[in-house]
Amino acid sequence: MESLQKLKARLGEVHRIRAATAVLRWDQQTYMPPGGTNARAEQVSTLSRLAHELFTSEETGRLLEAAETEAEGLDYDSDDAALLRVARRDYDLAVKLPPDWVEEMSRTAALAHGEWVKAKEEADYSIFKPWLAKMIDLNLRKAEYLGYEDCPYDALLDEYEPGMKTAQVREIFGALRKELVPLAQAIFKQADSVDDSFLHQHFDVKKQEQFAIEVIRQIGYDFERGRQDVSAHPFTIAFSINDVRITTRYEPDSLTSALFSSIHEAGHAMYEQGIAQELEGSILADGTSLGIHESQSRLWENIVGRSREFWHAFYPRLQEIFPDQLGDVKLDAFYRAINKVAPGYIRVDADEVSYNLHIMLRFELENELIDGTVTVDQAPDAWNAKMDEFLGLTPPNDALGILQDIHWSMGAIGYFPTYSLGNLISAQLYDRALEEHPDIPSEIERGEFGTLLGWMRENIHHHGRKYMPTELVERATGEPIQIRSFMGYLRQKFGQIYDI
Amino acid sequence: MESLQKLKARLGEVHRIRAATAVLRWDQQTYMPPGGTNARAEQVSTLSRLAHELFTSEETGRLLEAAETEAEGLDYDSDDAALLRVARRDYDLAVKLPPDWVEEMSRTAALAHGEWVKAKEEADYSIFKPWLAKMIDLNLRKAEYLGYEDCPYDALLDEYEPGMKTAQVREIFGALRKELVPLAQAIFKQADSVDDSFLHQHFDVKKQEQFAIEVIRQIGYDFERGRQDVSAHPFTIAFSINDVRITTRYEPDSLTSALFSSIHEAGHAMYEQGIAQELEGSILADGTSLGIHESQSRLWENIVGRSREFWHAFYPRLQEIFPDQLGDVKLDAFYRAINKVAPGYIRVDADEVSYNLHIMLRFELENELIDGTVTVDQAPDAWNAKMDEFLGLTPPNDALGILQDIHWSMGAIGYFPTYSLGNLISAQLYDRALEEHPDIPSEIERGEFGTLLGWMRENIHHHGRKYMPTELVERATGEPIQIRSFMGYLRQKFGQIYDI
Repeated sequence: MESLQKLKARLGEVHRIRAATAVLRWDQQTYMPPGGTNARAEQVSTLSRLAHELFTSEETGRLLEAAETEAEGLDYDSDDAALLRVARRDYDLAVKLPPDWVEEMSRTAALAHGEWVKAKEEADYSIFKPWLAKMIDLNLRKAEYLGYEDCPYDALLDEYEPGMKTAQVREIFGALRKELVPLAQAIFKQADSVDDSFLHQHFDVKKQEQFAIEVIRQIGYDFERGRQDVSAHPFTIAFSINDVRITTRYEPDSLTSALFSSIHEAGHAMYEQGIAQELEGSILADGTSLGIHESQSRLWENIVGRSREFWHAFYPRLQEIFPDQLGDVKLDAFYRAINKVAPGYIRVDADEVSYNLHIMLRFELENELIDGTVTVDQAPDAWNAKMDEFLGLTPPNDALGILQDIHWSMGAIGYFPTYSLGNLISAQLYDRALEEHPDIPSEIERGEFGTLLGWMRENIHHHGRKYMPTELVERATGEPIQIRSFMGYLRQKFGQIYDI
Repeated sequence: MESLQKLKARLGEVHRIRAATAVLRWDQQTYMPPGGTNARAEQVSTLSRLAHELFTSEETGRLLEAAETEAEGLDYDSDDAALLRVARRDYDLAVKLPPDWVEEMSRTAALAHGEWVKAKEEADYSIFKPWLAKMIDLNLRKAEYLGYEDCPYDALLDEYEPGMKTAQVREIFGALRKELVPLAQAIFKQADSVDDSFLHQHFDVKKQEQFAIEVIRQIGYDFERGRQDVSAHPFTIAFSINDVRITTRYEPDSLTSALFSSIHEAGHAMYEQGIAQELEGSILADGTSLGIHESQSRLWENIVGRSREFWHAFYPRLQEIFPDQLGDVKLDAFYRAINKVAPGYIRVDADEVSYNLHIMLRFELENELIDGTVTVDQAPDAWNAKMDEFLGLTPPNDALGILQDIHWSMGAIGYFPTYSLGNLISAQLYDRALEEHPDIPSEIERGEFGTLLGWMRENIHHHGRKYMPTELVERATGEPIQIRSFMGYLRQKFGQIYDI
């Protein structure tokens, strides 16, 4: 297995350069002084290019081919066989994108970001429109370079959710929509029956931090192999499976914003901390897709973190930390408040019921922009029409509409669906874990999370990138991605809260 | 100038990889969780090897040679001519050290560090002795690889203080010793006349931090292009001339430890922040030697930071922050306390008068170890004999003697003299700045540091590595490194404090 060993050494080097680049990016978002900006951009670009060149070199291709021949007949489930599958996939994708395109995308994204910020600040879509057009064009070219069977959007989606097809997403979302829209509309009518005003008082930021750290430590985020810092936008980043960091931001006038964001990021981070140590430093030491990643963050944020059992365990402590604000608020009122459902313009502020409607809107619009049935000129109207259709709202301006998300300015088209897939998968995995361990809810009630985390470790985290996302879901739950678990979860939880 | 342009691009890439490695090292010392240790070592080693391979490749040598031919006749003072001088020096040194030696040194240092820590903790020299022997052997081989005219120590010294010869240091130190020892002995007799006990009370760490940050901001450390964090050992590190960071550590029972360490590191950092923007990203964007670097840190820490004028400006504010501890302490008593002179075992705790005696001891012993007149078996006794000779003390154990410094465990022999050279140069530069701007002391008294910093910027910082250290001192002061300024400074300051 000489070629395989050489290939692993080479991929290990690529992995380490990428990890170093990640450290630079983390520092940029957390501690870097303003003066560092230009040099940091150059450093990141140099390291990215080095990693790319090393990975896409002919020598890598030669070693990969030779290793594949050596490895014929290897057990499909072995780490080596999985490594070769993943390396082949990554390599083929990486060599298909010409350096000129990569360079142009990177330059365009850098410029588009500033224009998007400005457009959003001024609620003026015309500023961003030419950049959206460029991004659509760059993504169409990307799809051509990468190739696809059915439609260009397949190639785009595949980057974020390997193996997933547009038609599959359309089918899943179609079924989901049919059940979700009536449920949402029924709940929206009762929106006023839940009061969450006490969540919006002054909450000392230091105390918020203290509580959030207690919570994520308790659910299983390992601070010996991670840390939490502050950044403008929360994120999770790994430099090793033994150094997986998260960030958050604190808002003095909101109790839940930083808290649920911390739990969300800790969910992402526990996924990476749970990858098998044997995979450390290899191309397999990463989450297998954004959808699976989101299933873990949403599991802990929503299914666990917004459950009655969870707050049975933590609410007394929270009241102890904020006696003035919460001393008189009963557990049931608190539980209802953190689960308040109401239609809104903004995706990132959406509740569990509305959230997927925001995603479906984006999935539809992205498809229409990519297949040309909607032009960039028509896009804001198309957005607003869909908002009305899905949520019964018309954004008063484009900042609260089509300009709200950063993703398109980064060139990321095909990314949004992974959020909803993650929601569906989180419920499906939780259902299966409950079947095997019916005591999980009562454990959560006692502040114990080991059984649930253990099940996720064994069935999801452990494997890293060994299996494709759909494959992994089927191995873990015995069936393909379905909407039954998620809809069942919503109906039970919100049916009870809103008495419908 | 095509080859020069290509060479610059290549050196720029090396520079950026090294800067990235520095970010990784900074993170390791400040924020990295324990779990990150192994992966970080691999990442640093990969990047270091990449930078080394790129820099020492034949292509770099070829471009360098071609660029030298192209650049013949270029003005000596031009950036390009200086870049080629420095690149040639670095390249020749780098290619002379065989990769096997570099690898062995790096492995030995990693192991020796742990053994040194243990030896020091247990005050047991026998644990460290075999590692010191290995380090001497490795340094002797290094000297042979690098080559030297006079003695092997020349080659070692040259790495830290380019162009400086052992004989020069011996001459300078000989002259210094003649004047310094009698002065020190006279002062030591009066040591008890200064009371510094009030510096060792409880000082709230947050308040210490607040004051230190006020001070270093005021003297000119630019927080827009830097930041201060906490680490086990204070250091300065640059990722760009616009991102130069310092660290410190706070001791709740000492007012001066963190404060003067912050000013010291800020002195180093202001040097790098002051390098001309035109040199950013090039091989010239660094300090020119450890001695010059130390001249800047010591200038701000001692000549400025321990001056009466400085505390005239800052003492009222310090009293305001620590009214309980300092409310009744007069400025004069405070000034005398922070300048208390007393013989001690430990270099890093030494006052301005004793400090250089500690260095001379190490310089002599390093030379004897390298030329073989003292063996590793004899080294502790030799150390103790010199301590008695220079400072009139006999260390009660080797932890307070030969085991106190980390340097030899890192393989750094030839490094120590740069500390004393820095002290001498700091006084020499300050003298010259005063000649040109006699108002500097009264500006300092008003808390204004712009004239002094401006002079250093223009004469030292601005040039980066364009000139060799001795050359730079001569350009700035019109004469070679001398002891007159430093001895004059000590005599005036301590003669007054100790009334001799």
